[in-house]
Amino acid sequence: MILINIGDELLLGQVINTNAAFIGQQMALAGIEMTECVTIGDDESAIRSAIENGFAKTNLIVVTGGLGPTRDDITKKVICDYFHRELVVDEQTLEWVREIFAARGMELTETNSHQADVPEGCTVLKNTLGTAPGLWIEQDGKILVALPGVPFEMEKLICEEVLPRLQEIFHHEHAVLYKVLQCTGVSESNLSDQLTDFEAQLPENIKLAYLPKPGIIRLRLTASGANNEELQTSLNQQFEKLKAEVGSLAFADEDIPMEAVIGKLLRGSGRRVATAESCTGGFIAHLITSVPGSSEYFQGSVVSYSNQVKRDILNVREDNLKKRGAVSEPVVSDMALNAMDLLDVDYAVATSGIAGPDGGTAEKPVGTVWMAVATPTRLTTKEFHFGKHTGRKQIIERAAHAALNMLRIEIEKDLRR
Amino acid sequence: MILINIGDELLLGQVINTNAAFIGQQMALAGIEMTECVTIGDDESAIRSAIENGFAKTNLIVVTGGLGPTRDDITKKVICDYFHRELVVDEQTLEWVREIFAARGMELTETNSHQADVPEGCTVLKNTLGTAPGLWIEQDGKILVALPGVPFEMEKLICEEVLPRLQEIFHHEHAVLYKVLQCTGVSESNLSDQLTDFEAQLPENIKLAYLPKPGIIRLRLTASGANNEELQTSLNQQFEKLKAEVGSLAFADEDIPMEAVIGKLLRGSGRRVATAESCTGGFIAHLITSVPGSSEYFQGSVVSYSNQVKRDILNVREDNLKKRGAVSEPVVSDMALNAMDLLDVDYAVATSGIAGPDGGTAEKPVGTVWMAVATPTRLTTKEFHFGKHTGRKQIIERAAHAALNMLRIEIEKDLRR
Repeated sequence: MILINIGDELLLGQVINTNAAFIGQQMALAGIEMTECVTIGDDESAIRSAIENGFAKTNLIVVTGGLGPTRDDITKKVICDYFHRELVVDEQTLEWVREIFAARGMELTETNSHQADVPEGCTVLKNTLGTAPGLWIEQDGKILVALPGVPFEMEKLICEEVLPRLQEIFHHEHAVLYKVLQCTGVSESNLSDQLTDFEAQLPENIKLAYLPKPGIIRLRLTASGANNEELQTSLNQQFEKLKAEVGSLAFADEDIPMEAVIGKLLRGSGRRVATAESCTGGFIAHLITSVPGSSEYFQGSVVSYSNQVKRDILNVREDNLKKRGAVSEPVVSDMALNAMDLLDVDYAVATSGIAGPDGGTAEKPVGTVWMAVATPTRLTTKEFHFGKHTGRKQIIERAAHAALNMLRIEIEKDLRR
Repeated sequence: MILINIGDELLLGQVINTNAAFIGQQMALAGIEMTECVTIGDDESAIRSAIENGFAKTNLIVVTGGLGPTRDDITKKVICDYFHRELVVDEQTLEWVREIFAARGMELTETNSHQADVPEGCTVLKNTLGTAPGLWIEQDGKILVALPGVPFEMEKLICEEVLPRLQEIFHHEHAVLYKVLQCTGVSESNLSDQLTDFEAQLPENIKLAYLPKPGIIRLRLTASGANNEELQTSLNQQFEKLKAEVGSLAFADEDIPMEAVIGKLLRGSGRRVATAESCTGGFIAHLITSVPGSSEYFQGSVVSYSNQVKRDILNVREDNLKKRGAVSEPVVSDMALNAMDLLDVDYAVATSGIAGPDGGTAEKPVGTVWMAVATPTRLTTKEFHFGKHTGRKQIIERAAHAALNMLRIEIEKDLRR
């Protein structure tokens, strides 16, 4: 399968291409390998040549973007030219577009009615979340699927309309399976040295890859082959071997974020968590609450960005703020311990640091972050240096990740008892 | 310029390709047009053919990824084959890699020493943030630049090593400039109908594009041509016309997020803001604090995820919670008004809603969110329905955006007085 993403905004970098990752992931799970992804602009000849080059290598192309009603969207015209078809009005789509506009209390404009124009004889994939339908065209053994570029519309169409049709056609002729083991507290190269022998004994159709993220190394085993069941067995065997090799460096045997690992630990445990955040500005709370069902174990957060809020709401001692500064061990300790009481939880995580670009000093440069995790029986504190050239966004992200990791370790201590 | 991103993880969708957007943006700002971006796996023949196809269309290729020391990284080998060169040890890089390992208190392993292997005769671009250097190869009028795939390492190399060299070579022979106007409170098609005449009168080298985001339409004018100065003048003229056409629908004449627009309004105003968040779980606070300098106007937040925290810290009246439920106008009103006092601010934003996937009812389906903005003289409330099929992540994002927009409108009311 080859993916073609159309849009000047992608090439100009005004939009990050999240569609490619989503489609790649969904295809892999369905046993269809995405071999290439091409991004081009809203340009007739570029679209035409991408489709031609693509069909020289594969019989399945998915196109996203360029299906809107505005003048810069020309994908449908190029598809018609390529397949020698005419654009015709699809009455059902026209009805649907009218319905959506009526529900919004708006008149259907001439421009918008063109949403219902589709290549003659194609299968129209109804877009229940928007006005631009998906298009499915089969001709001469080739399949072209064109989808709107709006992520949530595209995602629903992929899952509900495209994948079921593809699975029916391909019957898992070729399967690509993968499993991910996540490690922390080790460098990529040390892990790689440790896994030399393991890697050498892997069968030819199973590959090991290292996917580093700040603070995390994800190890991915990818198996490809003809038979889904045998492949699954062989992948599972190698994965168990890998887990044994890696030992306690691993913290999750699936590709889920740290906040979801924490969610799994806490659900059903009766234990509750809260955060008291300064430099992370609510980002840890956001990550925790991005997990469905987190209301079971997340009480809330006090984001104490100013010293006034640290004092007034979190009862941080004036003395600690004055003598040691907001970014200090006693201040994060106060924050965590008092948040534990105030928010009535078993675990409170606190952060205070300098995310930059301003506010750094020689003694406490940008990137310095103090963290604390309080539990009814323990208080753990740690100082981090994420580097003064790292950038505000990255410092916030790394600090949040490090804090979640500290929290995970404390929860695991309790649950292992 | 053609960009080639290498990595199975990109095709499997385990990593979102943010590098493409960054490089596209930087190139556009430097007057170099990225015409295509190709993503392929860690596969020799795919890399080889992407380089060959690329050089058939352009004389400048940037490659990212596959420069690490682990066994799945094969880019350097393919580059050597393509240019008929040998891999040789670069002593300065070897020294640097050794230094980094020493600073981390680690021994340089055999695997890691291969970071210093480079194609013979290439220019080595020192990676001050990591061990894999960038590579610059010129041969037969073609330029190939290979960079590590780790975003912050790649970003520094692009800005400090690659762009200065490219600008010296290309001298702005061809320029691509763009400007973005952001609008809200209007649909793409209505805006498009309103701008038909404006679009018709645009010179041939200036294009208008619609870039919708949830709740926002970004209008982008792109100008391309030979002369940078003339082009700038002509783009500016058209941009002023566009602003006049759009009127009060526009809220920003640059491509910055809503939280940065709010930051510009508040900096130097002496006014302060806080949030009281339930369903958005701290995401609004995170967005506000992602803006450098936000500590000047952001006091903090109470994330009251549980009803207990709503009552105990934000003093939401028990009666309102019981009779109307947590997702209701009186509850968000209590939250906003009490947060204004508690956090001592001029503006307090409150949210309470059902982000799903569970917790919806017939009366209050998933996606229902109540919001309030309190100021010392006004209280504004609004109910939103983001749709029960929208997905948790999207509901949180849209709710946060809608809340920031409500806040912006209230701030502008005061500043216009």
